Amino acid sequence: MSKRLPNQLEAWEAAALIARRELSAEALLIGCLERIAERESAVRAFAVLDADAALARARALDAGSWRGPLHGLPLGVKDLFDTADLPTSYGTAIHAGHRPAADAAAVALCLEAGAVLVGKTETTELATMQPAPTRNPHDAARSPGGSSSGSVAAVADCMLPIALGTQTAGSIIRPAAYCGVVGYKPSLGRVPRAGLKLQCESMDTAGGFGRSVRDAALLGSVLLGDERLRFADTPAAPSTPRIGLVPTPWWSQADADVQAAWVRAVAALAPHGIEAALPAGFDALVPLQKRIMFHEAARSLSHERVRHREALSPGLQAMLDEGLAIPVTQYQADLVAAADWRRRIDALFDDHDLLLAPSTTGEAPTMASTGDPLFCRPWSLLGLPCVHLPFARGAGGLPVGLQVVGRHGDDHRLLAAAHWVHQRLLA
Amino acid sequence: MSKRLPNQLEAWEAAALIARRELSAEALLIGCLERIAERESAVRAFAVLDADAALARARALDAGSWRGPLHGLPLGVKDLFDTADLPTSYGTAIHAGHRPAADAAAVALCLEAGAVLVGKTETTELATMQPAPTRNPHDAARSPGGSSSGSVAAVADCMLPIALGTQTAGSIIRPAAYCGVVGYKPSLGRVPRAGLKLQCESMDTAGGFGRSVRDAALLGSVLLGDERLRFADTPAAPSTPRIGLVPTPWWSQADADVQAAWVRAVAALAPHGIEAALPAGFDALVPLQKRIMFHEAARSLSHERVRHREALSPGLQAMLDEGLAIPVTQYQADLVAAADWRRRIDALFDDHDLLLAPSTTGEAPTMASTGDPLFCRPWSLLGLPCVHLPFARGAGGLPVGLQVVGRHGDDHRLLAAAHWVHQRLLA
Repeated sequence: MSKRLPNQLEAWEAAALIARRELSAEALLIGCLERIAERESAVRAFAVLDADAALARARALDAGSWRGPLHGLPLGVKDLFDTADLPTSYGTAIHAGHRPAADAAAVALCLEAGAVLVGKTETTELATMQPAPTRNPHDAARSPGGSSSGSVAAVADCMLPIALGTQTAGSIIRPAAYCGVVGYKPSLGRVPRAGLKLQCESMDTAGGFGRSVRDAALLGSVLLGDERLRFADTPAAPSTPRIGLVPTPWWSQADADVQAAWVRAVAALAPHGIEAALPAGFDALVPLQKRIMFHEAARSLSHERVRHREALSPGLQAMLDEGLAIPVTQYQADLVAAADWRRRIDALFDDHDLLLAPSTTGEAPTMASTGDPLFCRPWSLLGLPCVHLPFARGAGGLPVGLQVVGRHGDDHRLLAAAHWVHQRLLA
Repeated sequence: MSKRLPNQLEAWEAAALIARRELSAEALLIGCLERIAERESAVRAFAVLDADAALARARALDAGSWRGPLHGLPLGVKDLFDTADLPTSYGTAIHAGHRPAADAAAVALCLEAGAVLVGKTETTELATMQPAPTRNPHDAARSPGGSSSGSVAAVADCMLPIALGTQTAGSIIRPAAYCGVVGYKPSLGRVPRAGLKLQCESMDTAGGFGRSVRDAALLGSVLLGDERLRFADTPAAPSTPRIGLVPTPWWSQADADVQAAWVRAVAALAPHGIEAALPAGFDALVPLQKRIMFHEAARSLSHERVRHREALSPGLQAMLDEGLAIPVTQYQADLVAAADWRRRIDALFDDHDLLLAPSTTGEAPTMASTGDPLFCRPWSLLGLPCVHLPFARGAGGLPVGLQVVGRHGDDHRLLAAAHWVHQRLLA
């Protein structure tokens, strides 16, 4: 293994070196800042960057005692999370320069655990579909995906080891797939959302990115407050995981790259993969997810919708109008249907430790859009924990991968199993 | 009926007069502002008051076309909701003078519906137990209850017709009982919480206060976006509602005043009241509610806990420490138990249209505390809609009443039935 620069280390490796004082938080941060200086003008991952504050923090951590599992790790924070020390504009000019009162809970938990806040990363407009300026680090003509665009690009490009994102439809798993990193969307309701710009409370979930399952799990352990998520070498994965293969009803919309990755994964995982039968009517989950999301967004974003309509993109205006036009009786029935589906899907995990499913329809699209969250919508609606695993390349040379999905609340088991699966896919 | 001043009108009456242009929004507001000028130094309901902005808004509404069901109604907003035009400090000096980027969704929905924002009302420290400066309008030596202290006092004292509050344990129903107004806590998950300072996502619920069920329902119709909640004269209540009588396992902690109110209510509602058997083990809901609330608060309020610990009251420090000490495995098991209880309680509404239960242990306590939320905790945990109905006086001359509780998601039916019940209790 060739000698890697500090910014190329995985988060768990860097954390271990720092804990043993074989690497300083300052040296790691300087490595990251050098990479940022070199690449930011091309990638545009950051909405706000504060190198001086980060350096001061890293030095203070080096001078003090061990704070927690993220001690000394540079962290990027999607600009949808409030930060007390950095402006927060939620991806819209409406809120340019806003200074929040407090760090979002997820940010505060990471800082309490020793993370070094480096900057706020670009998000799409209010975490919806209007692209951020960020480019895909693998190909500047391509989108990194969204809405967690800057976070995923910074991690993929080795500007940062870990970064926070959020997912409502497909805003963690999809960009992770397009940029070839590990994305982790926790179980709905297990990471506090205080200080997060809420759009759709039935689905909004904070999570993050790393360059390995270990790294995503390390970050997740702090977000969930659950040390069972952390592992270095030997996670407590089942020795013979039962992997439910779920191409989903939208399989025909996966392109040749994704279908080839699927075939390769099924072969690599044999004999552990078994076909899993989704409940009848599963295809209804995509329109159901959209209706709930659009309706909730139209109400949650009422301030922007009513007072700043002209400053919203035409696409977001149309989405909010569509959401507002959904009758409340339909919305209430949709919530009941979603709750029923969450109960029904649970039984699938009696026979499967995890599910394997597509993450995207294909490689990253051009900069005109952030791509289609189609394959993420059902799992977001169901509130299940998901991990994207990168392991292949498409015809265009860009990353392709698949996601694994776990039982609600079983994040620690899902991450251990995801690591097991990822090792086999990479072998 | 003696001629009432504009500020003494119920919200639904004032709204109807304004819609018919028999009363101006400006005249109504001036009546409220005169009452505020007369009483605020004694009651201290407001954290921030902006009479000039409110007057300008009222005049603009009078000059324009009808905006919605709250057209021209002066509104108080608990200082736990963000407001774009007024500072928001969440009841703590830590955030004194903070200017949010946007109105909270609940505020924006009320403004869209034509409400006139008059001011921010006092809340206890971060909506927990450390009292606000607000006094009970019925007796300045007594607490108005909390955490929605200023909102409830302003409505009870005819400073405002309606005001927004929130409930996690008992922060709407309890103060409504202590001040003798109608308090409405909607079903969990039906009012958007964007822009609300979240403390405990498993229970935090936005709702509000009025001086009649009609008024609370009018406000609720905007918060839920559900016009079925609105009614003027003849709500679609069941003609023979089946009222489940639920003194609860904590009945012995209700004092003589509450027990007398209970006896009177049961007599007034005969023969519609029938004893309802709560599921076995219901008494476990109070410790369960506390554990989930404390653990979630300790994580949601991480910024304040970590960076401003010395500025928190000793009581809140202790609560957050207690919450942080609860193992995450216990918390996760508690969430599963809460979800089970939510399913189990639903069956009770197959046989009952609504439940009647105590709201408080007695009259308002002295200013040293905001009172015990004991009788509200189980319904908050269960996420059920609740309406407090004032109809009696205790030995100290202060208001006493009871709450009615409905099936999750059946807010429109609960409010219609609550109106029916309230008319009988007041007869």
